[in-house]
Order: sequence, then C-alpha cells, then structure tokens
Amino acid sequence: MAYIDLGLDEREYPGINGLLRYRPETAMPLLQLAETMLREPHSLSRGERELIAAYVSGLNECRFCCDSHSTFAAAQLDDGMSVVDQVHIAPESAPISAKLRALLKIAGTVRDDGRKVTPELVEGARAEGATDVEIHDTVLIAAAFCMFNRYVDGLGTRPADPERYAASAERITTQGYLAATA
Amino acid sequence: MAYIDLGLDEREYPGINGLLRYRPETAMPLLQLAETMLREPHSLSRGERELIAAYVSGLNECRFCCDSHSTFAAAQLDDGMSVVDQVHIAPESAPISAKLRALLKIAGTVRDDGRKVTPELVEGARAEGATDVEIHDTVLIAAAFCMFNRYVDGLGTRPADPERYAASAERITTQGYLAATA
Repeated sequence: MAYIDLGLDEREYPGINGLLRYRPETAMPLLQLAETMLREPHSLSRGERELIAAYVSGLNECRFCCDSHSTFAAAQLDDGMSVVDQVHIAPESAPISAKLRALLKIAGTVRDDGRKVTPELVEGARAEGATDVEIHDTVLIAAAFCMFNRYVDGLGTRPADPERYAASAERITTQGYLAATA
Repeated sequence: MAYIDLGLDEREYPGINGLLRYRPETAMPLLQLAETMLREPHSLSRGERELIAAYVSGLNECRFCCDSHSTFAAAQLDDGMSVVDQVHIAPESAPISAKLRALLKIAGTVRDDGRKVTPELVEGARAEGATDVEIHDTVLIAAAFCMFNRYVDGLGTRPADPERYAASAERITTQGYLAATA
C-alpha cells in the first residue's frame, strides 16, 4: 500500500496510476512529457523509445515502470518481448541496431550520473548515425525515467497484477498517455 | 559547450535554458511541471519548495541547478542564502522547521534511490506535521530534480556566469517558469 492515502483502490490504479489520479495538477505535465518523448513523430520509432524507457527502469529496478514499458516496447517492436528481454540481459549483444545500442549506452550512463556522459560516448552514437535530436531525446528519456522510477517507488506504490500490463499496452499504443487523464 | 549543437550562444542560454530553446516540444511540459511543483499555491512556501530542489541538486552536484535553485530559494526565504548554505552543509542542524527537516530527509533518500524510502521516514515527517500532499510533492520534487540534473549534465551544458543567477531569480520569482517560453 502506498505511503500516503491515495483515496482509491490501488489494485485498480497500480504504480503511477494512483499518483496521477491523486494529484491531477502534476499529472498533466507528467503525461504530456511522456506523450511527447515516447509517442510524437520522431526518427526513433515508438518501440525504440519505449525500449530506452524500459532499459533505464530495469537498471533502476523499478518493477512497475520496467514491466509496463517493457510491455509497451514489445507491443511496438517487430521482435516483441524477445528483443526486450535480450536488451535487459545483455544490451551489447541484443539484436538491435548499432545506433540504438550506442544510444542505450548513453541512457545507461545518464541513469547512473549525468556527469559521466563523455564526448566520446556521444561521438560513438553519432558515428552510428545518431542525430542531435536523437541524442537529446535519449538523454531526456533516461533522465525522465530516473524521475518516474523514483516517484513510483519513493511513494511505495504497488506494481500491477501481471495480467494487467497487456491491457495497459493496448490502451497506451492506441490512445496514448493523455487518455489516462480523460 | 554542450554535446549537441543547440544553435545559440550558450553564455546567453546557460544550463537548461539552451535545451529548452532547442526542443520547445519537451520544454513546455518540463516548465509546466516546475511551475506547478514550485510555485502554485501550496502549504509549503515557494522558498521551502525551492530549497528541496536546491538540496537535491546539491547532492547530485549539478552546479547549474544547485546554484539556480539555491538563489531562487534564498530570494523567497526570510533568512536568505544563510539558511540555504546551512542546509547544503548540515541539514540536520540548519535553522529550518522540524517538518522541513524531515521532508529533506525523504528528498535526500529519494535522490539516492526511491526504494530506500521507508514507512518510518514517512511517519517521521508526519509526526512533525507533514500532510500527505506535502509528502507527495516532496517525493516528486526530489524525483524531478534527479531528472533535471541529469538532463543538464548529461548533455554537457555550461553553468551560468555567477552574476546571472540573481537576474534569473528576479525573473522566476516575479514571472514564474512559464515566462521562459514566451
């Protein structure tokens, strides 16, 4: 049970969902940020951006965010959960593009400490074809999930029952993040 | 110089300012989040909320965010920079309320790892009079500055020249965060 009284059934609103209902004033910019970073038109596909979010959430061991965004990534990537699982276990050998691998390396470094990102890491991504906007958005997605993960875990929310993630993926991939505020 | 070409003079737009100009699509929810967390009416004063942001940014050693939000906190607290400095050096003995001290303890823990927040820490804040919304917002502010700090440092932006922080404080305390998008 969350550390504060959210005034709702946490089984119905697991993880961040209860927090978004509890405080709609902060929910709106948080959801708008997620929608912009993860779903608006971009040279990185929605699946690739969700994979960055899932990878960072896995490193932070945030069960709710990792399971959610892994499911959202798998639903939007050709190789589905197989590639997501391989990225969590061994990103250096997972069947993803060299560019995405270099961006994940940046994301993992940002997750540890933004100051540890080096010009060499950025050049490495650029050498694999990453654009400035892709590098920018990778850093921001990684940084944002360091926020979302701490928000969800710092208030002691409960993860979702496993069978619920597929329904969330269906909703997010068809209606987007802002539908949660409707 | 930032790791990506922001297409502007970084001395004029130091730290996050250049990033907000570079990517207005993500700037808008980020600034709306800051405005809501740090400036909208609340039982914690604007100065107290900026102090939480400054404290977390100090722990993350993000020079731009720490110097900015320390200045914004000082401008809105009765004891000015003296109390801000004491919070950075020794929060356990700084001249702040017992409630704010307990909330800073939660913020510092969230900064380290959201999973390390315990029911005892939350009860400690509650025993000093903290409300659920205050606990919620403390966790979210701490989590959000783990994002802002990584965003600013992960893209290698430069801090501001020291004399600029006072002008920023004047602007933020009178016009707010959304003025930056005008």
